[in-house]
Amino acid sequence: MGISVTILGSNSALPTSERNPTAQVLNASGRFFLIDCGEGTQMQLRRNRVHFGKIDHVFISHLHGDHVFGLPGLISSFGLLGRTNDLHIHGVADLEMVLRPVIDYFSRELPFKVVFHHINPLEKELIYEDAALEVATFPVEHRIPTVGFLFREKPKERKINKQMCDFYEVPLRVLPKLKKGEDFIPDSGGHVPNTKLTLPAPPSVSYAFCTDTRPLPSVVEVVKGVDMLYHEATFMSDQEGLAYKTFHSTARQAAKVALQAGVKKLLIGHFSSRYKDLSPLLSEAREVFPDTEIATEGVTFEI
Amino acid sequence: MGISVTILGSNSALPTSERNPTAQVLNASGRFFLIDCGEGTQMQLRRNRVHFGKIDHVFISHLHGDHVFGLPGLISSFGLLGRTNDLHIHGVADLEMVLRPVIDYFSRELPFKVVFHHINPLEKELIYEDAALEVATFPVEHRIPTVGFLFREKPKERKINKQMCDFYEVPLRVLPKLKKGEDFIPDSGGHVPNTKLTLPAPPSVSYAFCTDTRPLPSVVEVVKGVDMLYHEATFMSDQEGLAYKTFHSTARQAAKVALQAGVKKLLIGHFSSRYKDLSPLLSEAREVFPDTEIATEGVTFEI
Repeated sequence: MGISVTILGSNSALPTSERNPTAQVLNASGRFFLIDCGEGTQMQLRRNRVHFGKIDHVFISHLHGDHVFGLPGLISSFGLLGRTNDLHIHGVADLEMVLRPVIDYFSRELPFKVVFHHINPLEKELIYEDAALEVATFPVEHRIPTVGFLFREKPKERKINKQMCDFYEVPLRVLPKLKKGEDFIPDSGGHVPNTKLTLPAPPSVSYAFCTDTRPLPSVVEVVKGVDMLYHEATFMSDQEGLAYKTFHSTARQAAKVALQAGVKKLLIGHFSSRYKDLSPLLSEAREVFPDTEIATEGVTFEI
Repeated sequence: MGISVTILGSNSALPTSERNPTAQVLNASGRFFLIDCGEGTQMQLRRNRVHFGKIDHVFISHLHGDHVFGLPGLISSFGLLGRTNDLHIHGVADLEMVLRPVIDYFSRELPFKVVFHHINPLEKELIYEDAALEVATFPVEHRIPTVGFLFREKPKERKINKQMCDFYEVPLRVLPKLKKGEDFIPDSGGHVPNTKLTLPAPPSVSYAFCTDTRPLPSVVEVVKGVDMLYHEATFMSDQEGLAYKTFHSTARQAAKVALQAGVKKLLIGHFSSRYKDLSPLLSEAREVFPDTEIATEGVTFEI
């Protein structure tokens, strides 16, 4: 159980023969959430043996082609595979405007519904919530409206200490209350504090996805203390001017955001295709924030 | 020199982790022609080290997603690479209708023009011609309007036999006439027959591409005697009913077309993703037409 993220693509706009455009899949206790969907995502999902049918939600950071061109093929394949459950796509309103005619033309008679949810890219928003997980957006600064995503597990229940509950003869009906932290008051009188009967709840983890942006103080605030931060690092520091001009970040800048936000771990990605060897970007980031990893395609990171 | 075809993808609609959707690139003496453009084509072009900038013409057989979803990404990458020469896309009229808005949205300010040429899918048509090559369409029978493509080198000039021309003191200005087959009449009188001064022209080769169709007598006529025929073979014979119903062909039917048309070599492709091992399809086709090969991705076939 817990959350992991599998990198499907981590290159910037021009794919290379080795690296695909952006896509990641988050596995939250068996529920799969797709983040961005560059060209070739469906092939990458297959290569990484992700169960297609378990993806019900797709989150699109912004409308540059390298983050969305995999959607028509993915939707088409869902149709061919006989999917019936709704597919929810979260993105700015233009995504529906530009994608709907393509779906309608190429995937007539889909056996499932494609439901678009419009993101307001100017504000922080809670865009998804279930019993265990919340997904919120936050604005970043790119050439076009772009958002980051913050995935946060909800607080979990305390674990029952079975041995101690047996000893105190706790009735079954009381267990849900114990999990919520209440003490036990036996019918025969007395008082057993919750901490005697339960173990602490497992930690609730968080993951922030932040691509195609200049480094931002506002992002530092939003991602404060997350367990894992994916931050774009399109260039190295010697191209800081180009990074600024194109609304991107350098590896060092990504690391500074991670440091200032006090995150536990940093993944860097969205590399310019000029870099064949990525180790210099990793070194640059690690000088500032040692617990950095390359978002290598095909690798699953436990959060 | 000569013509070769490199297979970029040869799977049917559902890509597998091993096989990409349809795309091929024809190399005619250094000019590249792209045939169909399934998702991932730009990555496959890179993996096969095809010089992007040399593709000026793209031919699209029909508007099913697995034959076109690679176009937006390819066009976008052409733009990022600073392409300036026009890109010509040949397809049915709907292709422009559905693709133009996507290009306009995602690739504003392209440094080159995308020129659409509308194919009439109901008739044979000469759709491209240069000094050395002709490309014609022919109708096939699928669920939606679909065409095949016939690439044919024009007749070539005879080769100069330098030694003999020296011996007969042929002036330089006469050589172009000799190449066209004329005899040599020296100013001093006399007559030297062309065959004494030249060698036969190299053969002009032909390639037919024929996907997403039932097997057709009309195709047999069109592809008669071509040097290489690519014919779809989505299924094996035990699925002949399904092939008919979905407007596809079996490996045996593809081989029969090749046999009846007297082609030199057959490539089969567009395989259903149900087939992990393709050798049974090859065996089935070879029983009817021995000179058959699998259109394996990454393989270049000299025509």
